[in-house]
Amino acid sequence: MTSSIPAHISAWVEQIRSGNLRALSRAITAVENRTSDSHHLLKALFAYSGRARVVGLTGSPGAGKSTLVDSLAGQYRKRQQTVGIIAIDPTSPFTGGAILGDRIRMQRHALDDKVFIRSVATRGHMGGLSRSARDMVRVLDAAGSDVVLIETVGVGQDELEVTRTAHTTLVVMAPGMGDEVQAIKAGIMECADVFAVNKADKEGVDGTVRDIELMIALGSEAMVSSGKTRGHTVHSKTALVGQADAALPQGRWVPPIVRCVSTRGDGIAELVKATERHRQWLEGTDAGKARRHQRLGEELREGLREALIREATRALGDDVDEAVRGVEAREVDPYTATERLIAAFRARPNPPPGSGKS
Amino acid sequence: MTSSIPAHISAWVEQIRSGNLRALSRAITAVENRTSDSHHLLKALFAYSGRARVVGLTGSPGAGKSTLVDSLAGQYRKRQQTVGIIAIDPTSPFTGGAILGDRIRMQRHALDDKVFIRSVATRGHMGGLSRSARDMVRVLDAAGSDVVLIETVGVGQDELEVTRTAHTTLVVMAPGMGDEVQAIKAGIMECADVFAVNKADKEGVDGTVRDIELMIALGSEAMVSSGKTRGHTVHSKTALVGQADAALPQGRWVPPIVRCVSTRGDGIAELVKATERHRQWLEGTDAGKARRHQRLGEELREGLREALIREATRALGDDVDEAVRGVEAREVDPYTATERLIAAFRARPNPPPGSGKS
Repeated sequence: MTSSIPAHISAWVEQIRSGNLRALSRAITAVENRTSDSHHLLKALFAYSGRARVVGLTGSPGAGKSTLVDSLAGQYRKRQQTVGIIAIDPTSPFTGGAILGDRIRMQRHALDDKVFIRSVATRGHMGGLSRSARDMVRVLDAAGSDVVLIETVGVGQDELEVTRTAHTTLVVMAPGMGDEVQAIKAGIMECADVFAVNKADKEGVDGTVRDIELMIALGSEAMVSSGKTRGHTVHSKTALVGQADAALPQGRWVPPIVRCVSTRGDGIAELVKATERHRQWLEGTDAGKARRHQRLGEELREGLREALIREATRALGDDVDEAVRGVEAREVDPYTATERLIAAFRARPNPPPGSGKS
Repeated sequence: MTSSIPAHISAWVEQIRSGNLRALSRAITAVENRTSDSHHLLKALFAYSGRARVVGLTGSPGAGKSTLVDSLAGQYRKRQQTVGIIAIDPTSPFTGGAILGDRIRMQRHALDDKVFIRSVATRGHMGGLSRSARDMVRVLDAAGSDVVLIETVGVGQDELEVTRTAHTTLVVMAPGMGDEVQAIKAGIMECADVFAVNKADKEGVDGTVRDIELMIALGSEAMVSSGKTRGHTVHSKTALVGQADAALPQGRWVPPIVRCVSTRGDGIAELVKATERHRQWLEGTDAGKARRHQRLGEELREGLREALIREATRALGDDVDEAVRGVEAREVDPYTATERLIAAFRARPNPPPGSGKS
């Protein structure tokens, strides 16, 4: 499948596969920094991946995502499953690193070597945060994690992209968080597989649940009327809320709403159950399989985009700076300059694959 | 400069240049949809661009950006300047279009044909929202707008990218908006050229101003200590606030803080003055010129990235779907599949430039 794996990469893969946490940690760092080793490593690890359940969590800051991740990890550990956690942190504008960091996270699991935690700063991924996340998931997956949780902060476009890395995405909301504003943000409806209404012991929780129900119902209708869900019947509100024990939907997945209080552990088992149900839908229905196929296509196209840019940047070298000078002097318009750069890239001979930084 | 401009494009350019609003509107739509005409049009319009002042506005929802844009437009009109406005709206998850739209915006200027307003939905730009914004600015610029205002909703990564299209970016804040959370978001400090503290008649405004001052001071120190600002002296708080009438900084630009009440028009003249000062810095100092050069480089690199992807997608056609099937069947890993696709793209003959959709 791969041409030839360098010896030190094979040894590294062996260490990762045998549960060596330092080797795993080094691998994640290599993937984050996109060293040329990481390229070979990812190729070699691919054969061992594809087994882990990947669950993404997103939602407004303050909805309690971190404690929810903590509780979920605890729930999976109760079931004797190993857990990998990737926390996407906003980048500090001052240090350039992650703001929260591993140290104040997940104190509870600090001594449990079956829970592997890594904070990843949002910056420095050359626009490819979701590729970085996906590659890290692949490493944790090949290392034998049963479950990988990916937590993002906020609901920006980048964070929503990251959730596409997951099999199942939980959108976490809480009463009184101004979620009505956040929820309307582009993409949030499409990425939600399960809604977790956290802090469900707080006032206003019924209103939050009703808002989500309405949003789901409106979304279904809009999609039906625009012909996006052929053969799909819109569920009534009651069906939506009560569907946890109903038969698997054969068409589009309608996200269930689960109330929880992560600080007390309430509703966490139900949340895991809802993600399990979603897994069954993904694996057991044609619509679910179609979605997995679509996601794989997105991954490959995204990887292709990034690799193209990397290759072109390497091949063109100073030509790009030359073009900038030409446009600045108004000797050429930027559109023509771009066409010329692309033609130059395609005209140059291919470098041997895997050479240089990947 | 350009090889040959098709006759209908030349005619279109003439109409736009002579103030035909329908021709302008059609041009913006063509640019938004990236038709092949828009490609030729942008090339032809480039020669007439480079004159407009481009001012970006960003900040948390609820800080009153729309009314501020409205007041700023009024201020520029008082000075007999023509104004183009591009409002980046979140995309409605249901209709796929912009949520706010032109119709409820800027009622005040609805009958003034020297104010051209266009709402742009955040979706459907193939990741290239800032390129779309930049191209629209170029059209408005070539059409003779003296000032182009770009308003973004929210402070996500995409919105921050859009602000890089502007010469001067105003970050709009307001008391009690939870800006402390939003402000920490990666990138906001770097993109701010002027802070507008709106709703300055509300309680808590002094605290908001103090927070921003502290952020600026910390940012300067962090950059000095990390060696990012050779030769730059950190201004004291007093200098920061009082600098509006001081001499132009020869090194790094330190964003002034301007209080305003957009609904009453208070502080709007000061805001325009602050952006004028920033323009003088950009045009009159080495640091300012370096920044303009850097931005142009970013534009070209961004355009190159997008054009590469477009060309590759066109050239590869069904090969990408084939690769997806191969990875799905686990016959090949996604990294090797990507390398093969890039090699295939480079090996294929170049199409004639400007053919097909650009």
